[in-house]
Amino acid sequence: MSDNEQGMRGADGLLGTNTVFIGKKPTMNYVLAVVTQFNGGASEVTLKARGMSISKAVDVKEILLNRFLPNLKEKSIRTSSEELLNEDGTKSKVSAIHIVLGK
Amino acid sequence: MSDNEQGMRGADGLLGTNTVFIGKKPTMNYVLAVVTQFNGGASEVTLKARGMSISKAVDVKEILLNRFLPNLKEKSIRTSSEELLNEDGTKSKVSAIHIVLGK
Repeated sequence: MSDNEQGMRGADGLLGTNTVFIGKKPTMNYVLAVVTQFNGGASEVTLKARGMSISKAVDVKEILLNRFLPNLKEKSIRTSSEELLNEDGTKSKVSAIHIVLGK
Repeated sequence: MSDNEQGMRGADGLLGTNTVFIGKKPTMNYVLAVVTQFNGGASEVTLKARGMSISKAVDVKEILLNRFLPNLKEKSIRTSSEELLNEDGTKSKVSAIHIVLGK
């Protein structure tokens, strides 16, 4: 499987190599997605989440570092605001978090 | 009012000088609490949140930096796991975030 095909595999929240988008699935799905990426040779994985999923992204990071990959390091945590276009044409702002984990 | 008295004022989520605990109140209550602390002379304020409130803590930070206190800087963001004792004696882990903002 090429890197590109791996990047297209969306079932576990993967989109693009080395990035895991945290959404509405159970927390452990995302933990497993990150473990899979590191076991597949990735040296860095970025967790991205918006809105209420931000808490889940922090849970994923804590579970990974405390239980599954204790040698992992937190490279950076960054927050930002993103603008969303609502269906009625108005705009909303939503907070986002990017957590970069590396070996 | 002494620093100590200010630290005891709990109505807006304040507990101890320069720390704002983010909980179940509306987001803007906490934004106002932080603005009040900086206007009162604080040079650093720490936002602390656990569990689902982590998303709200990021919202508070983004609203402060983008709208109310654009000169503010993010000094650090740290996440951790805390252990809670349930009523039935079992233990749960909950994620926490500490965001330090400074002038």
